[in-house]
Amino acid sequence: MPPTLPPAIRTLTALGEMRVWSVLITIFGDAIAPRGGVAPAAALQALVARLGIKPEATRVALHRLVKDEWIARQKSGRQSFYGLTDAGEAEFLTARKRIYAPAPALHDPWRLILVETPPAATDLIEIGPQVFLGHRGSDIPDDALSLSGTIDALPDWAMHRLAPNGLQRDYADLEQALIAATVQPIGAPEDAAGLRILIIHQWRRLLHRHADLPPAFFPAHWRGEACRTLVRDLHASLSETADPWLDDIVGAPLLASAS
Amino acid sequence: MPPTLPPAIRTLTALGEMRVWSVLITIFGDAIAPRGGVAPAAALQALVARLGIKPEATRVALHRLVKDEWIARQKSGRQSFYGLTDAGEAEFLTARKRIYAPAPALHDPWRLILVETPPAATDLIEIGPQVFLGHRGSDIPDDALSLSGTIDALPDWAMHRLAPNGLQRDYADLEQALIAATVQPIGAPEDAAGLRILIIHQWRRLLHRHADLPPAFFPAHWRGEACRTLVRDLHASLSETADPWLDDIVGAPLLASAS
Repeated sequence: MPPTLPPAIRTLTALGEMRVWSVLITIFGDAIAPRGGVAPAAALQALVARLGIKPEATRVALHRLVKDEWIARQKSGRQSFYGLTDAGEAEFLTARKRIYAPAPALHDPWRLILVETPPAATDLIEIGPQVFLGHRGSDIPDDALSLSGTIDALPDWAMHRLAPNGLQRDYADLEQALIAATVQPIGAPEDAAGLRILIIHQWRRLLHRHADLPPAFFPAHWRGEACRTLVRDLHASLSETADPWLDDIVGAPLLASAS
Repeated sequence: MPPTLPPAIRTLTALGEMRVWSVLITIFGDAIAPRGGVAPAAALQALVARLGIKPEATRVALHRLVKDEWIARQKSGRQSFYGLTDAGEAEFLTARKRIYAPAPALHDPWRLILVETPPAATDLIEIGPQVFLGHRGSDIPDDALSLSGTIDALPDWAMHRLAPNGLQRDYADLEQALIAATVQPIGAPEDAAGLRILIIHQWRRLLHRHADLPPAFFPAHWRGEACRTLVRDLHASLSETADPWLDDIVGAPLLASAS
């Protein structure tokens, strides 16, 4: 990683998983989707470069996202553009709702569901052998016993099933990195944009590891909600500097209407 | 079995399990407990004789109940008496509540309880691996996840777990026997007392095989509640003839105060 990257970017990058295709998904969700969903290849390269990712790795990752039909490549003269497909757009919409929400979405009444055979695809949360936690909006699988109401008792072992191993520490680490980012000066708009993307990327990565439940469902010292507040505050303050620069390099509103 | 037994008694006896110590428990619950809990050995022998049970089998069963501390033997001159112990009395009180109740006792809100290790002793109803059904009054085991509320969905497999194999057919058979008993004339008061005890015995035996849940928890064509109505009606009509005879042979109010 080039030593010229700002310290806040280095700290957040060091938190873990920075697979390039996944970072590109964050970029599309945070910076491209709100600008019409289409970006010049050059703008994407400029953005990932701010995170210390090599152009060759970016090309490979873009190729994979095209193959998986998240995005599609378009040519206009000698310029390449990448735009979200309809399927990609739909996936982002769901993910964005959770990532940028001011609070966890799920709330009571809860459902406790017992099945004979585990359902193939489900938005239910597995909490025991053949037992799932759901909420009012959850579909009840065929042939399931379902009770809906309020939770009387939630023991430690259940909290630890809802928060996988290591997740608590990862949130604590993210919180420390976010606090550090709050006090480190960010000068250039491209660094503000890069840092904003990294913050969302690391936040998104941890969110994906657990259900969208209120803090009462998680073990003591859960830092998930503290991180949410820091993410939202940092996103807002970095956007003041980052948004004009992104508008400039993505310039999507025009391209989107032409795509 | 002696061919002199009335047809209604023969039909109910033929329904199954007539272990003598268990029949004696029914007799204590139905005829002795309401008369102070103490009966002369001769009265017990007179009662079981009406059901075709031999005196020797009765002596063996009484011995077992004394050994298990359900009842205690007392002597007065050359007469033997058997009386409920305090522990026996307490057991009967709980059982009687259910046997003579006009309707199932359990009602919503229900609890669905998930445990890590199954509780040793519990009034909860096992419904799945590590999963128990309870109601508002149920104790929640330590370390259990518990949700209380209303049941959204109760599939067939759950109903069949609540009603063990064969129980539905056994209730249907009991119903037929009770209907037959309703139309068969009972002349002698000792036969009315014997039939009443048999009806309670066979009803108690089936009740013990399932939880005290409303009919909605059981499979279609559940005859449990139809049997309850017949049992209560027959018990009331047989008591008119049986009670004066029982008062006479048990004569317990006086003995109870002396015990």
